[in-house]
Amino acid sequence: MALVVMKFGGTSVADPEKIKAAAAKAVREHKKGNQVVVVVSAMGHTTDELIALAHKINDDPPAREMDMLMATGEQVSIALMAIAIETLGVPAISFTGPQVGIYTNGVYRKARIRHINDERLREALGQGKIVVVAGFQGVTDDNDITTLGRGGSDTTAVALACALKADVCDIYTDVDGVYTADPRVVKNARKLKKITFDEMLELASVGAQVLHSRAVEIAANYGVPIHVRSSFKDVPGTLVVKEAEPMEDIVISGVAYNRNLSKISLLGVPDRPGIAAEFFGRLAENHIVIGMIIQNVGTHGLNDISFTVDRAEEKKALKIAREACKALKAKDVIVDSNVAKVSVVGVGIKSHTEVAARMFAALARNNINIESITTSEIRISCLIRESEVDRAVKVIHDEFALGEAA
Amino acid sequence: MALVVMKFGGTSVADPEKIKAAAAKAVREHKKGNQVVVVVSAMGHTTDELIALAHKINDDPPAREMDMLMATGEQVSIALMAIAIETLGVPAISFTGPQVGIYTNGVYRKARIRHINDERLREALGQGKIVVVAGFQGVTDDNDITTLGRGGSDTTAVALACALKADVCDIYTDVDGVYTADPRVVKNARKLKKITFDEMLELASVGAQVLHSRAVEIAANYGVPIHVRSSFKDVPGTLVVKEAEPMEDIVISGVAYNRNLSKISLLGVPDRPGIAAEFFGRLAENHIVIGMIIQNVGTHGLNDISFTVDRAEEKKALKIAREACKALKAKDVIVDSNVAKVSVVGVGIKSHTEVAARMFAALARNNINIESITTSEIRISCLIRESEVDRAVKVIHDEFALGEAA
Repeated sequence: MALVVMKFGGTSVADPEKIKAAAAKAVREHKKGNQVVVVVSAMGHTTDELIALAHKINDDPPAREMDMLMATGEQVSIALMAIAIETLGVPAISFTGPQVGIYTNGVYRKARIRHINDERLREALGQGKIVVVAGFQGVTDDNDITTLGRGGSDTTAVALACALKADVCDIYTDVDGVYTADPRVVKNARKLKKITFDEMLELASVGAQVLHSRAVEIAANYGVPIHVRSSFKDVPGTLVVKEAEPMEDIVISGVAYNRNLSKISLLGVPDRPGIAAEFFGRLAENHIVIGMIIQNVGTHGLNDISFTVDRAEEKKALKIAREACKALKAKDVIVDSNVAKVSVVGVGIKSHTEVAARMFAALARNNINIESITTSEIRISCLIRESEVDRAVKVIHDEFALGEAA
Repeated sequence: MALVVMKFGGTSVADPEKIKAAAAKAVREHKKGNQVVVVVSAMGHTTDELIALAHKINDDPPAREMDMLMATGEQVSIALMAIAIETLGVPAISFTGPQVGIYTNGVYRKARIRHINDERLREALGQGKIVVVAGFQGVTDDNDITTLGRGGSDTTAVALACALKADVCDIYTDVDGVYTADPRVVKNARKLKKITFDEMLELASVGAQVLHSRAVEIAANYGVPIHVRSSFKDVPGTLVVKEAEPMEDIVISGVAYNRNLSKISLLGVPDRPGIAAEFFGRLAENHIVIGMIIQNVGTHGLNDISFTVDRAEEKKALKIAREACKALKAKDVIVDSNVAKVSVVGVGIKSHTEVAARMFAALARNNINIESITTSEIRISCLIRESEVDRAVKVIHDEFALGEAA
């Protein structure tokens, strides 16, 4: 008997028919003799609709009340999912994040899970029930409802899988796996059978939107395998595991991109120790997620510091940058709202030193200008003009012949 | 400084503009220096829409999951209301029924409040916040979400007013008070300035839908005055109090009706002690609310027992009646789905013995057949054909000249 956590995203529970189909998948797992936990997102575009509703009252609504509001989306889904499962003859019980004991810190709209009290969950599983849990939400020690931020349902599913020591965490979504590149951009993109947590983490963080990076981090820490698969096609997806073998032949797993970035630059910053720490400390306090950080070599005792943020955060980040500019006695702040990032990811990058040069050369041959570069052990990212993203992804995908079967 | 509980029904919070208008009313009370608790229903037809959604999956969905589902309606309202109040510059905080500590029994869809833990509520009021509470919902000792049944938001508001020893409980609704008859049926129906709890209770239970009878019962028990008033017009409504003075001149307060009734009759029941108790016990176990009970005088050792239920409960009640018919060795069960009830209510009925005779005569003169009669100290009700309800209400309203100023 295995313990399986199954997560269904918004498109997979978008209407009653889709909910019934997802319920049937859960019942099938249960009939195999497995213990089943189902985690669901809000139906379709519910979360966006709730946000739009609040914005009709206030453009910048208080965060606690927004979490109160948004948490209703997943609560609707769990009730309907439990009803659908019971209709198929298997006992089910739904729990909200607070009920199931998903305790978070008090940072509304971006809360982080602190611990999970799995007592009630285990009790219900022990009674042979399929347990349906609301993704994306938790509760503070003061019993206030929080949400985990976008992609939070993945995080809920993986966190529950880890807490329960599940055998696998199935992430059902509207794509059927992780591809070597976005299939909407690259026609011959190929589905990966297996990928390592590290590669998935790099792919997730640079914009392959199949799986939230926080979820991958947690799964990697606890070693729970994730199976990314389609809600609508009954085919194997991509297994995200500790080590994908054989891996020696595979240099690059995929090409990812992130379109909606803004680059903010703080110009003429005095070159003294602690300045960067102070500046990025201010951004962190405001819970702004930073992408790339680029600091040029200082001349005349002055530095330029640039960083990228999601474009949705531009306004907020810019305000903080301007305050910091004053406080740090820097010269100016400039913003560029038309940048994007393209990245290659693969565990082979560590051992194959030619990857970076081949990527840069391919871009150069196609007149795509690289504005900044950052790398990790298994990733190389370039900042380019947003208008050139699609072309850049295709060029790199071809350069490494990712469309051919591995 | 007074403590005011303000309840806004579904039509009063049907869209963002209406929520803003309701928020402005709450802020106005707060600016007078009062402590303010706002109780809200789900927006517009949300509850019906959620029920319809569930019925797309299952016609008879499990009750626990329906409460999980329906509770989201009020949760959306409290978040938006708190946002609207904060937008007007007054600190606000929203609480779900479970958060505010409204503990109920475990009868899903029809839960009854057992006690209220007002600690968190008082703390927030002490901080000068307007507290926004979800109506209609509570929580069991096992932390399962329950709903109180239709009209439950009134019950929440009055129960909170009683727990907090509020000075008044304002019920804002889409009508501007309690009338001598339904103004849609009787053109010259008159708004009452004051009415006693007992009269309101009789009016509520026979179908004047401005205020739920459970709410009135609780208010009467604790002596908290209720002010039924309009969300849309700024005029005084009807005050529901312990004693409405001067009342000696007022014999009848109003005429009420209940259109959607079914009469179920158990025919040929053996005439032995305990039969009625056993039969109605079965109905009570299934939480079916009984209206009138009529038992004819037995002949040949056999009785006929009839009772009325809301038509929505007909199917369920009929099933139980048929089972009981078998168990009690009765002869048959028949159902009449086209009955309605018309009632006169007034504390003067106690002392004015001619009321019943005048009511029956007025109906007779107009060829409206009375099928059954029940009375309380301050109410006389007749069961008639549903098609004759409007005419019956007008006839009785005229007979007692209720349209003229008292």
